[in-house]
Amino acid sequence: MPKRRIALVEVGPRDGLQNQPRVLPTEIKRAMIDRLMAAGIERLEVASFVHPERVPQMADAEALVAGLPDRPGVQYIGLVLNRRGLDRALATRAGGARGVDQVGAVAIASDSFATKNQGQTADESVAVAVDIVRAARARGLSAQVTLSAVCGCPFEGRVDVARVVDMARRVAEAEPAEIALADTIGVGVPAQVAELVGRVRAAVGPVPLRGHFHDTRNTGIANVWAAVEAGVDAIDASLGGLGGCPFAPRATGNVATEDVVYLLDRSGVATGVDLDALIAANAWMRDHLDAPLPSRVARAGGFPRPKNDADAA
Amino acid sequence: MPKRRIALVEVGPRDGLQNQPRVLPTEIKRAMIDRLMAAGIERLEVASFVHPERVPQMADAEALVAGLPDRPGVQYIGLVLNRRGLDRALATRAGGARGVDQVGAVAIASDSFATKNQGQTADESVAVAVDIVRAARARGLSAQVTLSAVCGCPFEGRVDVARVVDMARRVAEAEPAEIALADTIGVGVPAQVAELVGRVRAAVGPVPLRGHFHDTRNTGIANVWAAVEAGVDAIDASLGGLGGCPFAPRATGNVATEDVVYLLDRSGVATGVDLDALIAANAWMRDHLDAPLPSRVARAGGFPRPKNDADAA
Repeated sequence: MPKRRIALVEVGPRDGLQNQPRVLPTEIKRAMIDRLMAAGIERLEVASFVHPERVPQMADAEALVAGLPDRPGVQYIGLVLNRRGLDRALATRAGGARGVDQVGAVAIASDSFATKNQGQTADESVAVAVDIVRAARARGLSAQVTLSAVCGCPFEGRVDVARVVDMARRVAEAEPAEIALADTIGVGVPAQVAELVGRVRAAVGPVPLRGHFHDTRNTGIANVWAAVEAGVDAIDASLGGLGGCPFAPRATGNVATEDVVYLLDRSGVATGVDLDALIAANAWMRDHLDAPLPSRVARAGGFPRPKNDADAA
Repeated sequence: MPKRRIALVEVGPRDGLQNQPRVLPTEIKRAMIDRLMAAGIERLEVASFVHPERVPQMADAEALVAGLPDRPGVQYIGLVLNRRGLDRALATRAGGARGVDQVGAVAIASDSFATKNQGQTADESVAVAVDIVRAARARGLSAQVTLSAVCGCPFEGRVDVARVVDMARRVAEAEPAEIALADTIGVGVPAQVAELVGRVRAAVGPVPLRGHFHDTRNTGIANVWAAVEAGVDAIDASLGGLGGCPFAPRATGNVATEDVVYLLDRSGVATGVDLDALIAANAWMRDHLDAPLPSRVARAGGFPRPKNDADAA
């Protein structure tokens, strides 16, 4: 029987770096992406086409994308929150340039969170995401949608599963390349994630599903495993667990790519990603940031190897 | 249907403090234990009856136990590694004193780890644990056994499940009050834990099972959930994730009690423990140690409560 395979989507260059106090030079971001690809990562969220004044860390989106290698088998993803962002993403492909290979749109499962983040109701955020998917596809560009705050809202607390399922159904009608379920604030637990994935899967049929988890309350890796067991096709992770200001008192880092790869390697699930190369990328990355990266696997190392391998079974 | 219930065994006062560079005064340990009981913890590993020169942090075992309140419904556990330790544990009960309510013995699933830790082979460690259980029971004292390094060995790497199952079967013949499966070095993953718990359960019949996990590679909480789903009756955890020098480069902290309570609360599993009281105990504990406690739930807080609870469902 072939081994189960999960695609990892590395979100460090966007979701990770966006939350760092330091704005990294474009060439360091590109070197980071190179190291991640060398480790075996085939899908990367590389940029965000949002207003450069709102997110100065992403102001170099066009320059970054223009300088990425035209590597086959790799997918470069750009985040877009509106038509203007989509136009910028499409422009990276003008004149035969490689540009981004996919755009990611976002719909938010709670009204309070949608209002604070994007000045929209939850329903409006669904309409915008659907519009982006349709417009991107009409221009021949792959598009997927992340449903945010599906495990809970920082302002409202509980988010109804039925609401998430209904949003997923409406998004699926636009035929996105993928729908992601995101526990944006890191409150979910595995039983909840299993229920969400199962019910969304039943509602959207063959649309591939992705899971996006944060380690804010230490349930991130448990939720990744629950999502994998419940049948998602891909998992978001960020090098070292970058993202959401992991060193603030109320940390919200993404699950670390190293930790996810360790989990899946040891569970017999293939990712195509080399853990040692990731740990080396983590060590390299540290020198370009103001704080250590929180991945525990990067600190502890992988599964112990017997000193004398010849003696081992 | 009554809610599923899991007993938490708080190991912070022993497994946690034993690895702190600072030796805490007896009265601070006692205050820690008081706060944990006030939060609803009913089983606590309070002391270790090992040689005081080997583990100076535990040198006050007798004084500590003598000063514990004679509280009904609570179980005080003392770690013993040999007959001498058992005699000391029994002596705490002499003359009608409450003393410890249970002793915990240890057997180690790999020869290299058993040799380095206790100067025994794995088989010898099983024989010692069985002897301790039989001798304790003969004196009317409850005794349980932890099987260590069941998910992997720092020197040998892989540990066979069949070996762990065989050890559990031999230990079960002594009729311990409980058998714990311990991922001592934090290398396990949920599928492995589920298999171990299932196969040990099948081998030992009605003996209650406990899970003991470390968060070294960020799989601790995922493993707790896998063990709960696979049917363990109790879980070890330590306040704040104390233990195993969590701030060393190769961290090996226990799963944090706060993180386990958050996971189980949100999963509909009862523990009888109040998360807010634990987070307050964590804040109090910090002032008596040299470093922050790594629990992520203590940093991030529990599940968000809507500002205006009257508006919430």
